[in-house]
Amino acid sequence: MSGLGGSEEEILVRISAHRSAPARLSDRRITMAHGAGGRASAALVEALFLRELANPQLAGLDDAAPVPGADNLVMTTDAFVVRPLRFPGGGIGELAVHGTVNDLAACGARPLALSAAFILEEGLATAELAEQVGAMAAAARRCGVSIIAGDTKVVERGRAEGCYVITTGIGRVELAGLSPAGLKVGDALLCSAPIAAHGIAVLTARHELAIDAPIVSDTRPLWPLVEPLLDLTGSIHALRDATRGGVATVLNELAVHSSVEAVVDEVALPVAEAVRGACELLGIEPVYVANEGVLIAAVAGGVADEVLARWRETPAGAGAARIGEVERRLAPGRVLVDTEIGGRRILDTLVGDPLPRIC
Amino acid sequence: MSGLGGSEEEILVRISAHRSAPARLSDRRITMAHGAGGRASAALVEALFLRELANPQLAGLDDAAPVPGADNLVMTTDAFVVRPLRFPGGGIGELAVHGTVNDLAACGARPLALSAAFILEEGLATAELAEQVGAMAAAARRCGVSIIAGDTKVVERGRAEGCYVITTGIGRVELAGLSPAGLKVGDALLCSAPIAAHGIAVLTARHELAIDAPIVSDTRPLWPLVEPLLDLTGSIHALRDATRGGVATVLNELAVHSSVEAVVDEVALPVAEAVRGACELLGIEPVYVANEGVLIAAVAGGVADEVLARWRETPAGAGAARIGEVERRLAPGRVLVDTEIGGRRILDTLVGDPLPRIC
Repeated sequence: MSGLGGSEEEILVRISAHRSAPARLSDRRITMAHGAGGRASAALVEALFLRELANPQLAGLDDAAPVPGADNLVMTTDAFVVRPLRFPGGGIGELAVHGTVNDLAACGARPLALSAAFILEEGLATAELAEQVGAMAAAARRCGVSIIAGDTKVVERGRAEGCYVITTGIGRVELAGLSPAGLKVGDALLCSAPIAAHGIAVLTARHELAIDAPIVSDTRPLWPLVEPLLDLTGSIHALRDATRGGVATVLNELAVHSSVEAVVDEVALPVAEAVRGACELLGIEPVYVANEGVLIAAVAGGVADEVLARWRETPAGAGAARIGEVERRLAPGRVLVDTEIGGRRILDTLVGDPLPRIC
Repeated sequence: MSGLGGSEEEILVRISAHRSAPARLSDRRITMAHGAGGRASAALVEALFLRELANPQLAGLDDAAPVPGADNLVMTTDAFVVRPLRFPGGGIGELAVHGTVNDLAACGARPLALSAAFILEEGLATAELAEQVGAMAAAARRCGVSIIAGDTKVVERGRAEGCYVITTGIGRVELAGLSPAGLKVGDALLCSAPIAAHGIAVLTARHELAIDAPIVSDTRPLWPLVEPLLDLTGSIHALRDATRGGVATVLNELAVHSSVEAVVDEVALPVAEAVRGACELLGIEPVYVANEGVLIAAVAGGVADEVLARWRETPAGAGAARIGEVERRLAPGRVLVDTEIGGRRILDTLVGDPLPRIC
């Protein structure tokens, strides 16, 4: 949770200057930070992709976009470039199914169908590919969705890393009224599971982190957390799966789009002990580490306990917690955190890329 | 048009042994041939992807698959890994839009929406990316479709080649009754444009072919060739865009799925002079070279002239030709070609990969 230095007034000037300026892409070359889900990614998306491809669906910046001319259908796409292909708790196969199904779930949509494209590196062991495709099939079955279309390309040795998998999903919206701009003062902020497990699990698989603690990825489908909320339509204001950029980046996106201020209670943020220890060793905050099975919800204060109770009845939500509140304060678009030691500081969006290629 | 040696009886035994055996994937590692769209690609798809991901939509092996629970919608996906990113007549941006829209068109579907995922190589010039994204936007506008969802990942320098683009399309079927298994004896085989331009154009951009002739890619949308045929529903039996593997591979797929024999007239196959010359220099047959703007149609014999007349009124179909007939002969699933010098030989599916990474 790296904050900014300076007095609160100074901070506000700098924050609002940052917020009000249109995103600019001044980098002449693409860097790893452009793929990290933080500020550089946002600049690339806003200043290049949104400008060139301008249309109302894309501008929604939601996890999935409505398909024009098709009632209630939404579409989302995700490219997976994780290395290594296998890590504790899963592999690129599960990830590619769950990641896309979860983007649909965050839009309140039940998955209808997936497509999968594969970019294979020459020399990849056929058995390794078969294992990951088998994992995809199993994950899709568990999610109740079929992979109905596919494509395969092969590139020369060295021009990929084993394989890249790109999935696209179509879903039907069953929980309506969700929007990243939908946060209201008085909303509760909920987190469905302990955070930061996925990024750390991938890092241990790379042997870049010498720890013995058994940390496994949280890759899992999130629709089972959305389905129990269908009768609460209208009280669930926003859902997001906190992947690249972590919980901090998701909260910042929601606060900016909704023009509200969010206050997070550091003590309430669920983090497993082993994960916390690993993050301390690495010098990174768990709120910036990618998750693959964490849903962040902004819900009307009155239904917060009910949502938590329903989530805790499901395996995916057993560790759910209320982590903060939506307030309107001095600086709309800002996220604050009440720290363990009694202070309050700004929780900024991710800058740079501490853990590349984790999804 | 590489045939097989031996007497016709010998050939038939070998062909039918090949046709009737279930596809086997004996290669322990992925090779460039698995991405070429020919026999190795088919083995990979059938023995690995279809086996693992088994479901009725995917098993249709069509260019696009029906979305379950969504009336008349089809979905298709394509990964583009062409190198270099620009070539005479276009670039990866146009290709990524046209390729996916054309898979929809080959299923008789008008495009509704596209998604686009980008895998960017660290160090890619931002201006080059912007140029290709701009080309995508322009191509999408010309096709009357929006790119409504996207994703971007960045991989380390060397782990991609500039950028890979993956597009997925959703379309609504307006020309029903198309099937790769739909060919009937007496059908005419039509080809919408001169063949082999795309593969050769890419090769010249790589400076692997020292010729002066201005050969440009045929990348273009094919829906304008399908829309004029909507009132002929029932008489249009199959459509295919002849990309990887070329016209020969498409004709073989259609013949196999429909259990018919197809006979192609070599003299009738439209090939531009410069392209024919380049193919001769390279020692490859134009029928195996990828196209990005060629539609192959199998239509009832009685409407063939009408289809050709309508196609020739459009820019994309100005060079359309009737290239063959569907017959039932000794060996269902076989494609024969009547050669320029008066012989008849087998036109096999592509084996190996003479021109990698052209789409």
